[in-house]
Amino acid sequence: MALLVQKYGGTSVASIPHLENVARRILASREAGHQVVVVVSAMGHETDRLDDLAQQIGVNPATHREVDVLLSTGEQVTTALLAMVLMKHGCPARSYTGGQIRILTDSAYTKARILEIECDNLRADLTLGTVAVVAGFQGVDADRNITTLGRGGSDTTAVALAAALGADECQIYTDVNGVYTTDPRVVDSARCLERLTFEEMLELASLGSRVLHTRAVEFASKYRVPIRVLSSFNDSPGTLITNEDDSGMEQPIISGIAFTQDEAKLTVLGVKDIPGIASRILGPISDANIEVDMIVQNVAADNSTDFTFTVRRTDYQQALAVLQDVAAQIGARQVSGDNRIAKLSLVGVGMRSHAGVASKMFKTMADESINIQMISTSEIKISVVIDEKYLELAVRALHAAFDLAAASA
Amino acid sequence: MALLVQKYGGTSVASIPHLENVARRILASREAGHQVVVVVSAMGHETDRLDDLAQQIGVNPATHREVDVLLSTGEQVTTALLAMVLMKHGCPARSYTGGQIRILTDSAYTKARILEIECDNLRADLTLGTVAVVAGFQGVDADRNITTLGRGGSDTTAVALAAALGADECQIYTDVNGVYTTDPRVVDSARCLERLTFEEMLELASLGSRVLHTRAVEFASKYRVPIRVLSSFNDSPGTLITNEDDSGMEQPIISGIAFTQDEAKLTVLGVKDIPGIASRILGPISDANIEVDMIVQNVAADNSTDFTFTVRRTDYQQALAVLQDVAAQIGARQVSGDNRIAKLSLVGVGMRSHAGVASKMFKTMADESINIQMISTSEIKISVVIDEKYLELAVRALHAAFDLAAASA
Repeated sequence: MALLVQKYGGTSVASIPHLENVARRILASREAGHQVVVVVSAMGHETDRLDDLAQQIGVNPATHREVDVLLSTGEQVTTALLAMVLMKHGCPARSYTGGQIRILTDSAYTKARILEIECDNLRADLTLGTVAVVAGFQGVDADRNITTLGRGGSDTTAVALAAALGADECQIYTDVNGVYTTDPRVVDSARCLERLTFEEMLELASLGSRVLHTRAVEFASKYRVPIRVLSSFNDSPGTLITNEDDSGMEQPIISGIAFTQDEAKLTVLGVKDIPGIASRILGPISDANIEVDMIVQNVAADNSTDFTFTVRRTDYQQALAVLQDVAAQIGARQVSGDNRIAKLSLVGVGMRSHAGVASKMFKTMADESINIQMISTSEIKISVVIDEKYLELAVRALHAAFDLAAASA
Repeated sequence: MALLVQKYGGTSVASIPHLENVARRILASREAGHQVVVVVSAMGHETDRLDDLAQQIGVNPATHREVDVLLSTGEQVTTALLAMVLMKHGCPARSYTGGQIRILTDSAYTKARILEIECDNLRADLTLGTVAVVAGFQGVDADRNITTLGRGGSDTTAVALAAALGADECQIYTDVNGVYTTDPRVVDSARCLERLTFEEMLELASLGSRVLHTRAVEFASKYRVPIRVLSSFNDSPGTLITNEDDSGMEQPIISGIAFTQDEAKLTVLGVKDIPGIASRILGPISDANIEVDMIVQNVAADNSTDFTFTVRRTDYQQALAVLQDVAAQIGARQVSGDNRIAKLSLVGVGMRSHAGVASKMFKTMADESINIQMISTSEIKISVVIDEKYLELAVRALHAAFDLAAASA
């Protein structure tokens, strides 16, 4: 008998028939002898509908408290309906808002962080055999103001509950079968991974964020809560995400290929190679609330170097304007940029112990005559920036070269 | 400076532009020097939409707790949006659920009764000049389970808050100008009443229930909270409802004519005139959860009498079936019924001191050759049952005979 926290996302609870399907899964888990605590999102596009009402008025930080009061109703509706469906099928059930549990958060409306979870109600329900159906995405602060955790917050609620209850597994039900080696829309032979480490999942964010919020992965990693991402529409086993140490099996060298076309790169040319220059460039970018992703600075030649970084594509024009000012102030030669780039990353914990991944990656791309514009590496990831028109070609070539379509041992 | 509790119904808050209109009224009240606490209903047909979701699953008493969790979200959405609109116009505002106030109720889900209201938050807001926007229709029980007060419960919330805060007036904003002498769709010259007593309002339920819930009137009467029913769509003064003693003016003899076509009558003929016979007839009707309105039993002749009562028209067939059984058991001669009747009532506190109202009423109807099938009277009301095809004729004739179109002194 295992204690499972099951989280059902918006597409899985989009209508009453969807809720009937969810109830069948919960009942099957109970019949298999498991104890179940359920976390639900808002139905289908309900959060968008509510957010649109707020946008019609106009949102600013002063009204964030009210936005949370508004948005939190979406999940509350789902909890009540799912509890009713479960009861109809003879399964004792009980809905809970974040405040009723209670899930205590800080007071940072629209992006609150969970501080503490009281488990008394949930433990009482488990003892009685009642399925607790908990509203995801929400909590209350110390003054019982309603807070929300930000988009994807229901994943975080589920992981936090699993951690607090010491659950054996946190199951994230969604509309895809799990985490794939790469985007199946680009590579036909993309394969659903059986397992992944938390680190890999975080590095695969661009693949994984559609199915699992990064914050939830960090939370799960910290509290060592095994997460399983799986579909509520079929019976495939999904992808299990755990600590590397837990897996007890040889890791594949490469787990997946993530990519994004959402970025742009900017270069400051002819920068003096003196201490503090990087912060004089990035300080004003940060002050403008522009997030920076990759940063590359090569060794200096002739006391002068080039400094390149990437930003979200939507921030490109603003970043360019900021840099023109900065370049003048620091006496740089020129600013250039390109918003038609793509970033591609090979991810795998196996890289740690296997040399040659980078050279194989670069050779594969050279064989396809794809020029690499930037390179950045971490312990389990190699990222490159290329012209966006070569992106699909590069992904397919690398997927084949690293034999990702074949199931690992 | 007055302290006002303003309640805005579903049609008054049906969209963001409607909420802008409501905000203008609230701001105008503040500019006039008043303090305002606001109670809101769910937007437009939101409660119906939520109820329909519940009905798709099927509702039974075991799921009433969840129905309340579901329905209460409707008002919560309105509170957040209205608070946002007020803030956009520079007016400090803050939304509250029933639980946040807190409005303590019993645990009778879907029809809870208010036990106590904590006013600390509201008083703090009044001191700060913040408009509290409170979700109507809902509360929490002692275990913080969400409860609802039943349809029309937002009126009750408003009156209860007004009583708890000692407000000067509870203003019920709706989509009609106030309470009319009779239904303006039937009588063109129907007039909006300037004032009414609580008693009259209760007796005029069939006219008034569209604008004000009976339970709210009872609550207001008990705690002597003056209620004003008025439109959120124009600036007419509406109808003020107070205790008779407060009015300090001569009462008109007749305030209004209420009517309903929603009833059916049933008669048990040839009933033995012995003690306990009425309960032997009405007991099984009550056991079948059929509500009885008028009951008439005339004096007996030959130790035998006829027993007549009215029920909701939708309960007619079931009541008839129950009565067939009862008649056989008690040895009654026959059961007859008619579901094409209408009930019409003259209401006015002035009746108490004026003789001749009944005779004038009956003469007016006789002049129109309208046969009266049943008569029932209370201290401030005379009700008759007639063939439904004469209803409009009777209402118009009585409205003219009692000169209701003319404004009272």
